[in-house]
Amino acid sequence: MEARSPKTIVLIGTLDTKGDEVKYARERIEERGHKTLVVDTGVLGQPSFEPEVSRERVAQAAGADLATLMAQRDTSTAVRTMMAGTTELVKQLYSEGRLDAIMSLGGGKGTAIATAAMRELPLGVPKVAVCTSASGDTRRYMGSKDIIMFPSITDIVGLNRVNRLMLDNAVGAIVGMVETDVEEPAQDKPVASVTALGITTPAAMKCKDRLEAQGYEVMVFHTTGVGGQAMEELIAEGVISGVMDLTTTELMSELLGSSFVAGPDRLEAAGRRGIPQLVGPGGLDMVAYAGRRAVPEEYTNRLLYDHTPALTVMRTNVEDNARAAGVMAEKLNCAKGPVTIAIPTKGFSAYDQEGELFWDPEADAAFVETVRQQVREPVQVVLVDAHINDDHFVDRAVQLFLE
Amino acid sequence: MEARSPKTIVLIGTLDTKGDEVKYARERIEERGHKTLVVDTGVLGQPSFEPEVSRERVAQAAGADLATLMAQRDTSTAVRTMMAGTTELVKQLYSEGRLDAIMSLGGGKGTAIATAAMRELPLGVPKVAVCTSASGDTRRYMGSKDIIMFPSITDIVGLNRVNRLMLDNAVGAIVGMVETDVEEPAQDKPVASVTALGITTPAAMKCKDRLEAQGYEVMVFHTTGVGGQAMEELIAEGVISGVMDLTTTELMSELLGSSFVAGPDRLEAAGRRGIPQLVGPGGLDMVAYAGRRAVPEEYTNRLLYDHTPALTVMRTNVEDNARAAGVMAEKLNCAKGPVTIAIPTKGFSAYDQEGELFWDPEADAAFVETVRQQVREPVQVVLVDAHINDDHFVDRAVQLFLE
Repeated sequence: MEARSPKTIVLIGTLDTKGDEVKYARERIEERGHKTLVVDTGVLGQPSFEPEVSRERVAQAAGADLATLMAQRDTSTAVRTMMAGTTELVKQLYSEGRLDAIMSLGGGKGTAIATAAMRELPLGVPKVAVCTSASGDTRRYMGSKDIIMFPSITDIVGLNRVNRLMLDNAVGAIVGMVETDVEEPAQDKPVASVTALGITTPAAMKCKDRLEAQGYEVMVFHTTGVGGQAMEELIAEGVISGVMDLTTTELMSELLGSSFVAGPDRLEAAGRRGIPQLVGPGGLDMVAYAGRRAVPEEYTNRLLYDHTPALTVMRTNVEDNARAAGVMAEKLNCAKGPVTIAIPTKGFSAYDQEGELFWDPEADAAFVETVRQQVREPVQVVLVDAHINDDHFVDRAVQLFLE
Repeated sequence: MEARSPKTIVLIGTLDTKGDEVKYARERIEERGHKTLVVDTGVLGQPSFEPEVSRERVAQAAGADLATLMAQRDTSTAVRTMMAGTTELVKQLYSEGRLDAIMSLGGGKGTAIATAAMRELPLGVPKVAVCTSASGDTRRYMGSKDIIMFPSITDIVGLNRVNRLMLDNAVGAIVGMVETDVEEPAQDKPVASVTALGITTPAAMKCKDRLEAQGYEVMVFHTTGVGGQAMEELIAEGVISGVMDLTTTELMSELLGSSFVAGPDRLEAAGRRGIPQLVGPGGLDMVAYAGRRAVPEEYTNRLLYDHTPALTVMRTNVEDNARAAGVMAEKLNCAKGPVTIAIPTKGFSAYDQEGELFWDPEADAAFVETVRQQVREPVQVVLVDAHINDDHFVDRAVQLFLE
């Protein structure tokens, strides 16, 4: 094994409350031959050692004064300020080539501050957040980014044999990642994205095969909220050059109070970049909730089906479909590039076909009617007399996309 | 850098649907000088290459026959069977010294199978699960274990420049972890655990300092469900030799339909092992829910407070406190070791004190009364005329614990 050039791992923590633990991680990283750059985000007591980037500088980077901030004793302002400052400095360090990887350790607030900064870094830059809340809802920390949530198992207040073991492994992970030679893949093929849920997967897989046969590199995104969000971001970054957005159920999530949302900008990035879009109504027949209890009260009398105890799906009705069609039309009317909406008239998902629980031609028809009324030239609407998962629909959709 | 001895990384995936991706990960691991041992958990088509452990063997390990299983075409049976078989084989490989680390890649079902097996391995054994659902609710996969959920960003159906980058980094992380020399910490100090929530943190921190002064290594656990569960497991494994379980709010979570549960066995492991316990009613004044919508319908008229949009707390009433006291008494009556219940009469959390929102002496008194009625000798109940976060209470509690 050859000696590698040392990399810089930015280490974020509150040196007033977790100074010993940050120091421990720093020493472990340095033992493995890499450099650290410590950013202090504490606003309570005194830092236990002097970091490369002081909390004063973090506050300054957010246009605030640390002494004033500490005197206010307002936790939420302090968190917001240190979050903004850390994010600013981390972006700066990265752009100056002084950040090869980033690691944090903290409780809820410390992790919120550090991961906000991590989310601004490109995919592939190693990001590790050690915290007690890795097992649970991680989306507020990760968003759609590649942040590794490393559980500390016990609280990070003083080192003990368990959290020390976790820190050892977390350091191992980030060191292993900075020592990875990421193969620069051949960038010659254009990238097309395809959206899917389990209930539209047959359509997506066929699409993928056909697009690959046409020379595309295909990325499939699961439209459970995070997936759609990740796709929108990759479109905005210019990674994706054509979209077969067959499964747009995240519009329903947004309209009907589901937590599986991709954000209000879903279905907009492609239009803004002017890349070709083929859009379908996959999964608009339903909206998914995180179990029965997550179904909003006004919908408890609707047709519900428990896919699993943690996943309840609801049949969307005529009104919902008209609303979703309106939103879709409005978004696509603003697109700068070519847009075709391809609609399978025999059902929008595996649930929505003759003989299945969510088969409801009237609701589907409401979507068709509204979308046709509301789209403007040059957006095209094409009806295909098939089910979304049928070969015939996919063939036609791919053909329309390639045109 | 010296050459390290190669380690074995067990790699789990469905070779029928994700053979190429597993192969890619295997090659990256082998390039870094380590060995792989592939376990196939697929039950659909043919595996794309021959693994070290075939799907037939996985099914067999669960007492099932693969051909029969495949013929049944029943997804949930197949998942359960492959989960049981994989778990069995992984435990066996580990006990034979043929597993130094474990990595999986998959969708929801594949990840459920692999992480069930990972959860059976001790803390510290590197565990990485690459999947699309790392950003979201990870607890069903991680439980209270140190499983690293690595996001694949795009679906793992075919390699593309994004998921390849994620696999490169995931391999980097697991390789970095197996190459970590975990320092065997001095095991001479006895370990005491202390439970806390934000609203009882002052008590826990004081406890920690006093116990450390007495020669203990202290582990603090956040009682948000996962924390209590992790503590119970570490007690069961014999890591912890004394418990100051000041914050038992997870009993309320269990009784009142919160998702922040530590499981029905909370407060039992210490009794079963017969180690000394000092138990308090910290946080029994409230129960936390994951936001307003997670509050069960029957409680929507109760006194609720939104700590954050994602965290709503409810004041528990007289009846709840009597019930929790009954559960606590029943569990502690079965303990094989010494148990003292120390109760601060001036409030159970920062919310529950004079002038604060949850101050309710009647509800607290219901707890005291019931617990006193229902505990049996030799369990002691000691009332302390102080608030839980007062020095006086902590001093007394530590003294009782040390006795």
